[in-house]
Amino acid sequence: MAHMTISATSPSLVTLSDIQAAAARIRNLVVRTPLLPCAWAEAGRPLWLKPESLQVTGAFKLRGASNALAQLTEEQRARGVVAQSSGNHAQAVAYAAQRLGIRATIVMPDTTPAVKLEATRGFGADVVVVPPAERDIRPLELVAEHGYAHIPPYDDARIIAGQGTVGLEIAEDLGAGSPDLVLVPVSGGGLISGVATAIKALAPEARVVAVEPELAADAAESFRTGERVTWSPELTYRTSADGLRTTSLGVLPFEHFRKYVDDVVTVSEDEIAAAVRVLGRKSRLVAEPSGAVTTAAYLFHAAELPAASRTVAVVSGGNVDPARYLEYYA
Amino acid sequence: MAHMTISATSPSLVTLSDIQAAAARIRNLVVRTPLLPCAWAEAGRPLWLKPESLQVTGAFKLRGASNALAQLTEEQRARGVVAQSSGNHAQAVAYAAQRLGIRATIVMPDTTPAVKLEATRGFGADVVVVPPAERDIRPLELVAEHGYAHIPPYDDARIIAGQGTVGLEIAEDLGAGSPDLVLVPVSGGGLISGVATAIKALAPEARVVAVEPELAADAAESFRTGERVTWSPELTYRTSADGLRTTSLGVLPFEHFRKYVDDVVTVSEDEIAAAVRVLGRKSRLVAEPSGAVTTAAYLFHAAELPAASRTVAVVSGGNVDPARYLEYYA
Repeated sequence: MAHMTISATSPSLVTLSDIQAAAARIRNLVVRTPLLPCAWAEAGRPLWLKPESLQVTGAFKLRGASNALAQLTEEQRARGVVAQSSGNHAQAVAYAAQRLGIRATIVMPDTTPAVKLEATRGFGADVVVVPPAERDIRPLELVAEHGYAHIPPYDDARIIAGQGTVGLEIAEDLGAGSPDLVLVPVSGGGLISGVATAIKALAPEARVVAVEPELAADAAESFRTGERVTWSPELTYRTSADGLRTTSLGVLPFEHFRKYVDDVVTVSEDEIAAAVRVLGRKSRLVAEPSGAVTTAAYLFHAAELPAASRTVAVVSGGNVDPARYLEYYA
Repeated sequence: MAHMTISATSPSLVTLSDIQAAAARIRNLVVRTPLLPCAWAEAGRPLWLKPESLQVTGAFKLRGASNALAQLTEEQRARGVVAQSSGNHAQAVAYAAQRLGIRATIVMPDTTPAVKLEATRGFGADVVVVPPAERDIRPLELVAEHGYAHIPPYDDARIIAGQGTVGLEIAEDLGAGSPDLVLVPVSGGGLISGVATAIKALAPEARVVAVEPELAADAAESFRTGERVTWSPELTYRTSADGLRTTSLGVLPFEHFRKYVDDVVTVSEDEIAAAVRVLGRKSRLVAEPSGAVTTAAYLFHAAELPAASRTVAVVSGGNVDPARYLEYYA
């Protein structure tokens, strides 16, 4: 037998045509959000916002969840789906399932605020509350027990392609004068993987920069070291940006991240709070801290960003506790 | 010489094709706002919001102003424009003029909050501050003196056609399942005239209902009596909805109003405040009181509204004093 070289096969990356197919599939399930020019942008640095806070569930997560659910077979739809989340993915899967007539079970840790449990139940999902230690295992048990289809939050090609429709719309809406800098929040990496894939295909000169909190800067460290680094939850849970506490990039997102992302910028908690305030007062958008990190990078880290004549900041969501929001806005 | 009958000619109403022409003319000057489904709508009464608060100047007024300015001759553009406003029309004319390279002079009463003077100057306009008694005469003096083109806030076919693009987009976006009830704030009547013209042409079965504050209910009285009624500013200035304090419908808007509007509903100050809160907390939109009256009608006056399977509420703007907004949101 001849000597064979076993090459490590890297996972298949999502393509522009996957994202275009996702856009057609989810058209009637999501809001096509506008690009909003900012009157308050600095001279010579025009800024547009992509406000995913306007999705019916308040965050971009609805795009990926809808794209995954819309591809299930009839048999899978009849059995139902399960997902695990304490945040925006929970409501996204619940809402998309309700729209498509699919039964959804959402596993949520018992540390989840009551308002988020209620919102998820409000979209007709069965909510299973578990101790945090069981949050990852319980969905797999439910898959084994009931044959549910598991809908992961980011480490999945269908999810990445769905989130990529954000990038498709940005490129379409800026048209001939395509963006030259797109700022995207990063956590598990589903959103930035999809957005970067679309932007690099449609506007190859554009730079895509990831933004994350200083207090949960595993992606910045991964970018610097070239390795997929994990931070402990004790570290990542310090940030107010509760959508960005994932402890590492997903495996499939990391492949996109290292191919397409040009840099990572980190922002402080004070900068995030100031950005939430600016978005509310000057762009009339209620944003959550995770959604405001890109605006914080625009406002406070211009020197670290590539020079740009057309910057887009993705405002990923607006699900913020009202009592906390009052403090930010004031 | 033969006997001649002189018939009273009523002013020409704006048509659907005027509105379609406006849409093409202003495409690159305004945001095409999305229709936002509301997860918090009552069972059996689905609701969509049309959030004009997302325009760069924070209100629908940008549509009419852009349509008027884009039709000026080269000679008129070279001379410049003048407008009178203490509110959203001021910023709209200033911004549209800046985008089109036209010099704008805005006459504002000396009772205008400093923040609004600054915002108008921020768009490059010359601001002329006058005692309230001179607010209507001074623009005409400037026209006589400098040959400026006067851009009125609502009593003008170009303005009505521009605001009508809101209705065009609503009908386009709801598509086959066209709206059957559209709620529109009313004050001078430019917005509702244009929206009703578009909706009645594209979805003839739909009802268009005007909404205004109880404390500035001149349009409701005009609807009931069939006459264009004027209320005193002492009355209309009692409402918190500062965009709806105009003392009567305009002459040309009144012709559209009596032809197309199916009813007028009035809302209380407490209802307006509650609606601002719901829009912020549940739809993540910072709305001004004037913009929230339609949501107030949906929430608190269902019994007075026609039965509807698809209701649209136009959220006309989001320019609210931050200190006041904190009280609404809390």
